[in-house]
Amino acid sequence: MDKQPTLSDLHDARRRIQAWIHQTPVLKSRVMDELHGCQLYFKCENLQRTGAFKFRGASNAVLSLDDSQARAGVATHSSGNHGAALARAAGLRGIPCHVVVPDGAVQSKVEAIARYGGHITRCAPTQEAREQTLGQVLQQTGAEAVPPYNDFRVICGQGTAALELLEQVERLDLLMAPLGGGGLLSGCAIAGQGQVDVLGAEPAGADEGARSLAAGRILAEGFTPDTLCDGLRATIGPLTFAIISEQVRQVLTVSDEKVVASMQQLWRIMKIVVEPSAAIVLAAVSVNPDIFTGKRVGLILSGGNVDLDRLPWVEQPSA
Amino acid sequence: MDKQPTLSDLHDARRRIQAWIHQTPVLKSRVMDELHGCQLYFKCENLQRTGAFKFRGASNAVLSLDDSQARAGVATHSSGNHGAALARAAGLRGIPCHVVVPDGAVQSKVEAIARYGGHITRCAPTQEAREQTLGQVLQQTGAEAVPPYNDFRVICGQGTAALELLEQVERLDLLMAPLGGGGLLSGCAIAGQGQVDVLGAEPAGADEGARSLAAGRILAEGFTPDTLCDGLRATIGPLTFAIISEQVRQVLTVSDEKVVASMQQLWRIMKIVVEPSAAIVLAAVSVNPDIFTGKRVGLILSGGNVDLDRLPWVEQPSA
Repeated sequence: MDKQPTLSDLHDARRRIQAWIHQTPVLKSRVMDELHGCQLYFKCENLQRTGAFKFRGASNAVLSLDDSQARAGVATHSSGNHGAALARAAGLRGIPCHVVVPDGAVQSKVEAIARYGGHITRCAPTQEAREQTLGQVLQQTGAEAVPPYNDFRVICGQGTAALELLEQVERLDLLMAPLGGGGLLSGCAIAGQGQVDVLGAEPAGADEGARSLAAGRILAEGFTPDTLCDGLRATIGPLTFAIISEQVRQVLTVSDEKVVASMQQLWRIMKIVVEPSAAIVLAAVSVNPDIFTGKRVGLILSGGNVDLDRLPWVEQPSA
Repeated sequence: MDKQPTLSDLHDARRRIQAWIHQTPVLKSRVMDELHGCQLYFKCENLQRTGAFKFRGASNAVLSLDDSQARAGVATHSSGNHGAALARAAGLRGIPCHVVVPDGAVQSKVEAIARYGGHITRCAPTQEAREQTLGQVLQQTGAEAVPPYNDFRVICGQGTAALELLEQVERLDLLMAPLGGGGLLSGCAIAGQGQVDVLGAEPAGADEGARSLAAGRILAEGFTPDTLCDGLRATIGPLTFAIISEQVRQVLTVSDEKVVASMQQLWRIMKIVVEPSAAIVLAAVSVNPDIFTGKRVGLILSGGNVDLDRLPWVEQPSA
């Protein structure tokens, strides 16, 4: 297993990707604060390039390659945001990018991968099929694998979102990020060391992360996630598990119903487009007043890539 | 007629309302710039308090009243954003607010007026009915009328959005704002004096502003606007007409179809919620490459108050 990244590795990553990424704004709303009984600071990674924090990790991975490694390009499996981010970062460096996409991925995300020049291979929507298909692509192309989260370079890149937030807002009590595969959450945990308590939020229908942390070992085998949060269906990896189990205070699980309500609230009150996987952090606040009331809370809104004609609160015309 | 506001009046307004308003962010997107062939700077008044620039003018009007004037409160007619903004500003000062709302107003906007404590009176959706009903309310309450746009204090407040934008972004070639009643556009024109060419954007189905400017006199009598841009259905007033005809270079008219396409583009690419009346400035860019190509363009995104379950690109279940 890789060694664990440190705060100093995150600062290196930040310097490396600085020119490529947006320093995203932190938004506040008095109405939101009143509704939730705490001070909420929204770090808007939905406004990041490619519409998600994933561009940070992908950029750090692509910029970490030496020229000979880079030549054959990069490859990954992704249900969307990581694939689009990697394709964009590879395009900026002028190298090829191959993305294995499971069936059922959100259409707008698949289109984004193609728009940024990624070469797409489809596969069945299981962890096994993703990894097997990626193996084939790597063999055929000689590309460097850039896993979506269980990767030192990716974790360091994602953690820069929290580094920025901790500079933009003073004296946070708590910082929360979504938990899917754990790249963002583990990066945020490293960024927060000694400064702020870091929490995770995970869909109840994809709670293998919370259960694994409770059991002290990864319980992902054969697990089939069932959640609207399409960005959080991946299962926690060995590297992210190790960091999160040491450094994250708690992972809160939330129903999809609460996620949709929070997503609507963010659109309606904050006037920003966030995807379900991003809204989950607000949903976790809304159902845990015992943890959050009166606190200064930083929330990482992870992304904003949604199909605008398939919104979860709008009745779909029957097929 | 009132005398015309000057740049110095705008600076006074800015100092007056500074503590109440958000200095809204200016967003940029490389993808947007590539799509439109120019540098676009989006001034996000959809992120303003109450979800629209209207809070600026309303705050300036409410804060301009002396204590004896203020006691009986304020009153206006509004299809939504101005009413909500005035109710909020009045609430902050602790005085009553009465709002005459025409039938057909967007539901979420009417709810916002009520949520901020405004007292609502409904009327028919015509300019005559609005003014007549407001007259009755003023008589009954003794409140101070704060018109939605044809008002010195309101124009000065709205213009502070452009004052900020011109500080936030250097060397703009063009600045564009939507034209409804003309409060925002006339305020922006005063702010831009000698620094930047100011343009307006108006719905083709509510183009009495552009036609009035071409004719040199207001052609609003009996006019019934027909546009999706619910915030731009008001007709230009004598004070705003005078300022706009002297200081605005051109008013561009745009079809609702183009507005909806631009609204979707803003949601999808910029990840922000804007209403049709805000998206019209981008639509005007998209259909006028001769004017905008290669230019540095500041666009005022006026507001973000929409009914999320009645989006213009989503098929409505039949009633």
